Amino acid sequence: MNLSSKLLEDAVNAFATLPGIGRKTALRLALHLLSSEERKVDEFSDAIKKMRKHIKFCRDCFNISDADLCSICSNHRRDRSLVCIVEGIKDVMAIENTGQFGGLYHVLGGVISPIEGVSPSDLEINSLLDRIAKGEIREVIMAVSPTIEGDTTIYYIAKKLEGSNVKISTLARGIAFGGELEYADELTLGRSISSRRPYGE
Amino acid sequence: MNLSSKLLEDAVNAFATLPGIGRKTALRLALHLLSSEERKVDEFSDAIKKMRKHIKFCRDCFNISDADLCSICSNHRRDRSLVCIVEGIKDVMAIENTGQFGGLYHVLGGVISPIEGVSPSDLEINSLLDRIAKGEIREVIMAVSPTIEGDTTIYYIAKKLEGSNVKISTLARGIAFGGELEYADELTLGRSISSRRPYGE
Repeated sequence: MNLSSKLLEDAVNAFATLPGIGRKTALRLALHLLSSEERKVDEFSDAIKKMRKHIKFCRDCFNISDADLCSICSNHRRDRSLVCIVEGIKDVMAIENTGQFGGLYHVLGGVISPIEGVSPSDLEINSLLDRIAKGEIREVIMAVSPTIEGDTTIYYIAKKLEGSNVKISTLARGIAFGGELEYADELTLGRSISSRRPYGE
Repeated sequence: MNLSSKLLEDAVNAFATLPGIGRKTALRLALHLLSSEERKVDEFSDAIKKMRKHIKFCRDCFNISDADLCSICSNHRRDRSLVCIVEGIKDVMAIENTGQFGGLYHVLGGVISPIEGVSPSDLEINSLLDRIAKGEIREVIMAVSPTIEGDTTIYYIAKKLEGSNVKISTLARGIAFGGELEYADELTLGRSISSRRPYGE
C-alpha cells in the first residue's frame, strides 16, 4: 500500500504490531486519529505511555497495581486464609467479575511449558511458597487452564506443598450454563456425570 | 470491569475510543503493550503523536503529505491535464493501488450532505474551481461513491463547471470482477446491459 506519507506509514506500522490488527485496520485507526483533535490524540498517546511507565505489580500477589500493594491485597475485608492461584491478570479480572470470591490471589505469570521454555523458576512459584510459609493461608484454589501445561503446573505446586497442612482445591469441571449437552466434549460430560450432585443442593 | 489500576483503566478507555474497538479488545491491546518492552511502547506512542502533529495536507490536492506538496503532485511524470476527484484519502490509496491512473487527484474531504450538515463550503470545491481556472486541466474524473450524496456532489461540481471546456467523466458502472450475475442488484445489472461493450474491445 502506497501511503504517500512516512509519518502515516509509521503510525500504521505501529498499530499493525498489535495482536489481531492487520494493515487495513491499522490504516483505519490511524486515519481516525488523523481526523481527531490533536489534544485527543495526545491524551490517547500519553495514556498508553504512562500506563507502561508507571504501572506496578503488587509485591504480594503480582496482580497489576498503581501502588506497591494492590487494591485486593490491601483490602482488609478479604479472607486472607484463602488464595486463588491464576495464570494471569485477566483471570483475576474474570474471577473478580463473578463477585463469588472473597479471598486473595496469586498471579503466576504463566504455566510450566517445556515446549515454550517456561520453567518453574520463570513463574512466581517461589514467592507463592514464601507466602504460604508465613502460615496464614489455609487453602489454595488452583484456577489454572485445564490444559496439559496447566495440569503440570498444578501437579508441581501440589508436590511442593506436600507435608504442609494447606488444603488444595481445583475449580469444578462440568457442563457450562447455557451449554448444550450434545455439543459438550466427552471428557467434560463424563466428568460431570461422575461428579453429579444431589438435586437441590 | 474492575481493572484494579487507574493507569490501565485510562489506557483501555483510550483504545476503546477507536472505531470498531470495544472494551474487551481494548483490554487485550492494553495488556499486550503492558507486556511489551518500554522502548517499543514509547515508539508506538510517539509514532501516533508525531503523525497527528506533523502531517500536512498537500496545498494543491489536499491529499496527506509530509511536505507542502504531496509526492503525487510533485511527480513531474504524472499527467497534469487529468484530475480525479475523490471524497477522501483512502480513495486516493485505492486508486493508486490499481496502477491504472497517471493523473493528479483532488480530495474533497467528503460529499455534500444536508442531513449531516455538510455544505459545499465545507468541502474543497472552491479550491478545485481555482485549480481548474488556471487552465491546465482538460478532464476531471468524478470518482465519488454512487450514493445520493455523491450524485448531488457530482451534480453541484458539474453545474459550476458549465461553460468551461473541461471534460467531465464518471467511473464506469457495471458488474464487478468475480461477482455473480444473480446477486447483482437490478440497477447495476440494468446499467451494465445498457452500456454493454463490443466483445474484444
